[in-house]
Amino acid sequence: MKKGLRFRWEMRGGGALQPEESFEKKSFEQGRRSASFCLLKNGKIPPRPGRRFSGQPVPLGGTADGFSKDKVYFKKQEVIPMAKYVYLFSEGNGKMRELLGGKGANLAEMTGLGMPVPQGFTVTTEACTRYYEDDKKIAPEIEEEIFKYLKTLEEIAGKTFGSVENPLLVSVRSGARASMPGMMDTILNLGLNDEVVVGFAKLTNNERFAYDSYRRFIQMFSDVVMELPKHNFELIIDEMKEKKGVKQDTELDAGDLKEMVKRFKAFYREQKGEEFPQNPRVQLMEAVKAVFRSWDNPRAIYYRRMNDIPSSWGTAVNVQMMVFGNSGEQSGTGVAFSRNPATGEKKLYGEYLLNAQGEDVVAGIRTPLTIDTLKEQMPEIYDQFVEIVAKLEDHYRDMQDMEFTIENRKLFMLQTRNGKRTAAAAIKIAVDLVNEGMIDKKQAVLMIEPKTLDALLHPQFDAAALKKAKPIGTALPASPGAACGKVVFNAEDAVKFAEKGDKVILVRLETSPEDIEGMHVSQGILTVRGGMTSHAAVVARGMGTCCVSGCGDIVIDEEKKVFTLGGREFHEGDFISLDGSTGNIYGEAIPTVDASLSGDFGTIMSWTDEFRKMGVRTNADTPRDARQAKAFGAEGIGLCRTEHMFFDGDRIKAVREMICSKTVEQRKTALAKLLPMQRGDFEELYEALEGSPVTIRFLDPPLHEFVPHTEPEMRDLAGEMGLSYEEVKAIIDGLHEFNPMMGHRGCRLAVSYPEIAEMQTQAVIEAAINTQKKHPDWKVVPEIMIPLVGEIKELQFVKKTVVATADKLIADAGMDMHYKVGTMIEIPRAALTADEIAKDAEFFSFGTNDLTQMTFGFSRDDAGKFLNYYYDNKIYESDPFARLDQTGVGKLVDMACKLGRQTRPDIKLGICGEHGGDPSTIEFCYKTGLTYVSCSPFRVPIARLAAAQASIKYPR
Amino acid sequence: MKKGLRFRWEMRGGGALQPEESFEKKSFEQGRRSASFCLLKNGKIPPRPGRRFSGQPVPLGGTADGFSKDKVYFKKQEVIPMAKYVYLFSEGNGKMRELLGGKGANLAEMTGLGMPVPQGFTVTTEACTRYYEDDKKIAPEIEEEIFKYLKTLEEIAGKTFGSVENPLLVSVRSGARASMPGMMDTILNLGLNDEVVVGFAKLTNNERFAYDSYRRFIQMFSDVVMELPKHNFELIIDEMKEKKGVKQDTELDAGDLKEMVKRFKAFYREQKGEEFPQNPRVQLMEAVKAVFRSWDNPRAIYYRRMNDIPSSWGTAVNVQMMVFGNSGEQSGTGVAFSRNPATGEKKLYGEYLLNAQGEDVVAGIRTPLTIDTLKEQMPEIYDQFVEIVAKLEDHYRDMQDMEFTIENRKLFMLQTRNGKRTAAAAIKIAVDLVNEGMIDKKQAVLMIEPKTLDALLHPQFDAAALKKAKPIGTALPASPGAACGKVVFNAEDAVKFAEKGDKVILVRLETSPEDIEGMHVSQGILTVRGGMTSHAAVVARGMGTCCVSGCGDIVIDEEKKVFTLGGREFHEGDFISLDGSTGNIYGEAIPTVDASLSGDFGTIMSWTDEFRKMGVRTNADTPRDARQAKAFGAEGIGLCRTEHMFFDGDRIKAVREMICSKTVEQRKTALAKLLPMQRGDFEELYEALEGSPVTIRFLDPPLHEFVPHTEPEMRDLAGEMGLSYEEVKAIIDGLHEFNPMMGHRGCRLAVSYPEIAEMQTQAVIEAAINTQKKHPDWKVVPEIMIPLVGEIKELQFVKKTVVATADKLIADAGMDMHYKVGTMIEIPRAALTADEIAKDAEFFSFGTNDLTQMTFGFSRDDAGKFLNYYYDNKIYESDPFARLDQTGVGKLVDMACKLGRQTRPDIKLGICGEHGGDPSTIEFCYKTGLTYVSCSPFRVPIARLAAAQASIKYPR
Repeated sequence: MKKGLRFRWEMRGGGALQPEESFEKKSFEQGRRSASFCLLKNGKIPPRPGRRFSGQPVPLGGTADGFSKDKVYFKKQEVIPMAKYVYLFSEGNGKMRELLGGKGANLAEMTGLGMPVPQGFTVTTEACTRYYEDDKKIAPEIEEEIFKYLKTLEEIAGKTFGSVENPLLVSVRSGARASMPGMMDTILNLGLNDEVVVGFAKLTNNERFAYDSYRRFIQMFSDVVMELPKHNFELIIDEMKEKKGVKQDTELDAGDLKEMVKRFKAFYREQKGEEFPQNPRVQLMEAVKAVFRSWDNPRAIYYRRMNDIPSSWGTAVNVQMMVFGNSGEQSGTGVAFSRNPATGEKKLYGEYLLNAQGEDVVAGIRTPLTIDTLKEQMPEIYDQFVEIVAKLEDHYRDMQDMEFTIENRKLFMLQTRNGKRTAAAAIKIAVDLVNEGMIDKKQAVLMIEPKTLDALLHPQFDAAALKKAKPIGTALPASPGAACGKVVFNAEDAVKFAEKGDKVILVRLETSPEDIEGMHVSQGILTVRGGMTSHAAVVARGMGTCCVSGCGDIVIDEEKKVFTLGGREFHEGDFISLDGSTGNIYGEAIPTVDASLSGDFGTIMSWTDEFRKMGVRTNADTPRDARQAKAFGAEGIGLCRTEHMFFDGDRIKAVREMICSKTVEQRKTALAKLLPMQRGDFEELYEALEGSPVTIRFLDPPLHEFVPHTEPEMRDLAGEMGLSYEEVKAIIDGLHEFNPMMGHRGCRLAVSYPEIAEMQTQAVIEAAINTQKKHPDWKVVPEIMIPLVGEIKELQFVKKTVVATADKLIADAGMDMHYKVGTMIEIPRAALTADEIAKDAEFFSFGTNDLTQMTFGFSRDDAGKFLNYYYDNKIYESDPFARLDQTGVGKLVDMACKLGRQTRPDIKLGICGEHGGDPSTIEFCYKTGLTYVSCSPFRVPIARLAAAQASIKYPR
Repeated sequence: MKKGLRFRWEMRGGGALQPEESFEKKSFEQGRRSASFCLLKNGKIPPRPGRRFSGQPVPLGGTADGFSKDKVYFKKQEVIPMAKYVYLFSEGNGKMRELLGGKGANLAEMTGLGMPVPQGFTVTTEACTRYYEDDKKIAPEIEEEIFKYLKTLEEIAGKTFGSVENPLLVSVRSGARASMPGMMDTILNLGLNDEVVVGFAKLTNNERFAYDSYRRFIQMFSDVVMELPKHNFELIIDEMKEKKGVKQDTELDAGDLKEMVKRFKAFYREQKGEEFPQNPRVQLMEAVKAVFRSWDNPRAIYYRRMNDIPSSWGTAVNVQMMVFGNSGEQSGTGVAFSRNPATGEKKLYGEYLLNAQGEDVVAGIRTPLTIDTLKEQMPEIYDQFVEIVAKLEDHYRDMQDMEFTIENRKLFMLQTRNGKRTAAAAIKIAVDLVNEGMIDKKQAVLMIEPKTLDALLHPQFDAAALKKAKPIGTALPASPGAACGKVVFNAEDAVKFAEKGDKVILVRLETSPEDIEGMHVSQGILTVRGGMTSHAAVVARGMGTCCVSGCGDIVIDEEKKVFTLGGREFHEGDFISLDGSTGNIYGEAIPTVDASLSGDFGTIMSWTDEFRKMGVRTNADTPRDARQAKAFGAEGIGLCRTEHMFFDGDRIKAVREMICSKTVEQRKTALAKLLPMQRGDFEELYEALEGSPVTIRFLDPPLHEFVPHTEPEMRDLAGEMGLSYEEVKAIIDGLHEFNPMMGHRGCRLAVSYPEIAEMQTQAVIEAAINTQKKHPDWKVVPEIMIPLVGEIKELQFVKKTVVATADKLIADAGMDMHYKVGTMIEIPRAALTADEIAKDAEFFSFGTNDLTQMTFGFSRDDAGKFLNYYYDNKIYESDPFARLDQTGVGKLVDMACKLGRQTRPDIKLGICGEHGGDPSTIEFCYKTGLTYVSCSPFRVPIARLAAAQASIKYPR
């Protein structure tokens, strides 16, 4: 390939579509590269600002490139200038997030705003993608470009990289398009070596500082680039402190640090069999590569999976001139939020450490000072900072999360970004910003990440129980909410306990990115060290998990799995409770109560309803759930699973009697016992919903779920049924299935035993009649849903029973009552033949749990055995049971909607799988034209918000 | 509704399409009626001869009728003449089979040809459909029409229905579009009552004959219309014969028969609580209804399901003037084939009984005379008959199956149809007709029902074993083939034994339509009574099942389940063997050997290859199967299931060692033991196929299929593996799955354990290299198939290992060898994303077994529990595992083909599910554009024939 010139395929994609523009996405491969583009159905190219190249539409005549003949794609074959892989901060701007990553784009933006930013350059996310395409190698042309820009940076700084006299030192930091806190790795003070450090000490006239910088560099480089864990170096530091009888790193003097550098290097040599790299250019390229590599480390993959970030995005690398917060007591480093990230309060909120560098504050090694103290210590710096904060907030129209460094009483901004916040804070900030006239209601609604509401919707402590409880300790309220669970001492145990169904509290000296999975499954996190911006606190808030941090009173032995607090000893499995809003720690289990919508939360939710165009219902089987969901704004029940009502006391007896029946008559007798109970349940549901629609799904699970499987239980059952043990055993053995997921269940039960559908219809209709009589002003319209239909004739068969039963009851009651009969679409064949099925189904409800299982051909119960291999190998990037697979399952959903509407234009379309509460799925449902989504009661507000956001983003 | 006028929806459909005309089928509903029509994509209406009405295309502007806006359908709303529901024989012709049924159309055709046919009329299949639409009622307008035509018939006959002086008696017989032998019911002598019989006796001057006719009528009417089983009446007859000391019915005199009528009527009154109906008009309408009803009896439903006949077709009813074969010794009735239906020999072949009526011959109650005897008894009738036969065969250009009656030495033709025949006969007749210049090769190929070839392909007796065996009896060779199995005495037991996996021979006094399911599962059928045209013989030939009939030497007690023959006693479960070609019966199990293609069979098969445009491969895992398939004409292996090679002696040990491995290294060591065995297997397969392509599927089943599950076996395994029992148990327990069908299997195993794919690749490629070296003139192109892919990245992941391994081996061997990597399409998601998958798959092979399971959402292993309810309720009309569900699963197959070709126009498309050997599926595969079908070795000739027929029917 000719130097400086590249041959490229060029394509268009993304961009804001007009509402009436449907579009299709296509992707192709050329050699190792693959890309996707999108083409409007009207033949137009969607607008996309900021693209550097554009292609001409070329009708593809042949098939040589693997496309069908009637498609058009965009191709640019002429030789075009080589892509630019490196940007100076002064060349970029805040909109170039995709290319420069969030950190890089914001550094460029701040540079543009004239703020004090140490200059540098960004290696683009495209370089990262290219690195992976090129089998994890940095192409020579990119390396060349980096050093070209390094030269420019030297000119800007007036310093020289690798020079002994006036060395340029740089930081190398990752920066992906989306913020991934704690997941990526950073290297500071790069450019130091045995010679440079001597010159640096001379130049700064501060030998202690120079060697402190060098030892930090060795530590970070070894850890991040060479995979020699930091921990090893910490042991050396601890050894030296002990020997000298001091507690703080700052108490070590220049001589100690020189000795430390020596020991670090010796340890490095011993471990790696070679000297610590002395060539700064090698250091730089290795660091860049390490950042690229870190994009694909397991923690990053896990985080992306949790947050739906595609692995194709890649990370940028920021190479920035160092400024030094560790150059003495006139220096420092800190982080701050323009508003309180836990409560949303409009008050500068932050922490800093003097004579410290980089990660010291967030790593939680020393407990930092609050930003207010800075006002006393360096008032002019504080004032300058406050001014910058105001400017940034005004510029970004959002709460900012900033990093700063003070070098010899000079302020530098190292980063700004829209700050992570708790759900409560997000809500307060959004409402405040509207009140302040900074944003409008739509922007406010869009500002809140729906998933985070979860934290507000989870139970809080029961007030009465809390009154009686006495905290055994208190620490920083790092992430709000209440939690109660069994103590575990490491992430692995947390996962193990959680898999058994235990609720756990993770108690750690401090957390680190390795702990992320364990943190995710925990109810709450308690740390001994670290402040409000420590790793534990930031990550917990992001997850909406309760966290209390920095509890220095705790004496912990993680190895022995024991800690003491308030004079008591706690072992693995003991219960404790945490209050993330007060910081209180309780040495007991405290019961919790439900949350409610009020105040700013209520305000935001009322705004969502102004914009929302899709209904939100709930999946509820009990009046309690139904009332909770109603309180959360559910507009009806989208799925009532009748079988959940079959397990209580007398009911399960009747159910088992039905199962053991040998004749239709016996079965009817048993069903007659269930009838009044079911009718009562439905009446309660209608009452709870106050006339809103209730979709009742008929019996779905295989019958073996209702019978006992151990000998003593079977003997008991035999006694109750007046049968011999052998008879009962034969019946139960006969119910065994090889693949119960695909067995005798759903409408197949009603086909075999129409009397079950008859009884359930009777219960539904009688309950509706009774409710209607009691509340003449309500309009009760029962919706009967037949599950697991795969063929129109199945539905027709069951519907016949339903209609015959219902019509007679309604006629007998002399009522004018309407009811609907619809079906779940949860079998691929139902989606494929939805035009047929819509002839008899008045509504579809997508059962995306089963539809996902069958479309993927794997059972959720068994997938655990192999899904981790899939995540590890990046075959799946998200859990298809949490986030609807739009490519495959979504295609079936879309097809079913189109076919269904073709037959019955006014068909009601809903979703009642667990995906119904997932924001990305909700957006998909809105785009696909669903009438409503249905989700668990606690996800109703999330669904309302997500649905509103979809309506705003894609106006119809 | 105005009398004589009807408001009808009118639609177009079916018809011969031109090859380039793709079409789509639509259906709609209007009230209770539903219909489907078809519309060419080019907007034209497909031609369809013989339609009585035509509509104008009306673009549908709105959506009021439930259609999408961009569709066009045909609608005729003006008032049009009332449909004609009744046709005189002289009004119809042989092409009107859809409307008149086969029997009615052929009676009309024979009438047109001037043959001696007792005249009558046909009530159409549309009347039957209408009957079901009208909730099983005959509309007054249809009843009126029937009596109008009855009047016409009276005029033709010169007799009056219900008249005492000169009564018209009629037969009422069913006649569906497709011949359904023995499934439908017939009533003779209708029109007799207590008064008419007296006049009839006077008129015929034959009181015995008149009362014989009357008692037969009462018997048949009671059985067919009133559901009083014939058996009850037979008991009365037996009683009377015993009392009189005679053996044959014919020995009873007029007085006896008068008495019999009295007793029959008394019995009827006693049973039904009312008199036997005396009004001939009521008799007629009840009989017509009974025929309509019989269309939906369980036997008919079962037969239709077995033969893929849609229930929407309905049956016609033929009302025909009676002629009497029972009016004395100058009368008789018989059936005949124009050629031998068992062998195809060109020689008139038939049987008759003198002084007998209707069902007497085929029911096997008396043993009939051969047709040759007629030559002596009534030479002039014989000659006339031979002349008619020749004329009919020449007219229909096919072997004819005819019914005739002789009334006082006058011949009447009651039916002709293309005769059912054995596969051997079908082949001989087809080849002979070509040689006789009657038909061409294409017609010959189309003439043979592919499924019937099965009979020729099943094993015959081992010649050596047969030599040693001595028959214990011999009877009529009613349906060819050899059979060996355990004796059972009724259809129910046959089913029970067969379900356990036992091969059975059904031994019966005589068979009846109730036995059909039991006959279907039997290897062979042996009857004591009945000739070559008895129920047992006809049905067995249709099924391709071996049958020996009319073995009068047998003394049987069906109740006690014992029979004696040749001085030996046989009980249920004893082994016997039958030779359906010689009629020999053996009192022992005789081993069988494979069939081969030769003679006329070979000729036909060579003709199929002249027309066939789609490849036929085989599913074979052993060299023996591969050789057999090759001999049957397979052009390659479409599916080699490698796991079937894992069970032999040492292999299973190595497999278990692999499963119990705790590290990758241990697993590799175990796999290394399997490598030479797998390589050897593949070498043998390549040898057997002589260079034809071999598609090898990688390990598919879940690992728990390879391990023991009982404690002693697990202890043995622990010993072998050097592990504790507890360790082995833990490993095996860990393999348990809730839904193994959807568990850790297929490519999921290779994702978890890439070393398995690596070993299998090595075995495949090394075997190919060795074979190529040995046979430099062959071109060995290994095809590696990755199972259970649902996502392109899965395939990419496994393919990486395959390609790396294969390329290295080929390079090391210094060969220029090509290989292909493809995938099964057996997961719905794979079909939905086939455009993506085709990027990395060089071929698709549709695994329609799993694809059917997942598309329907039911497990084949469990579906047995509910499928019968589905068949009983007509929800499914055929077994979706035997015949591809073209509506749902077929839609996915079609979609995958289109998407696959879009990405990779030259992609190879095959099918390797069991459907690959099903003729209707093969036709679908041809139309969908598949490259080949692959089926079990014994179905290869069937697939070749079916593929040839598809090519002829739908020329490209």
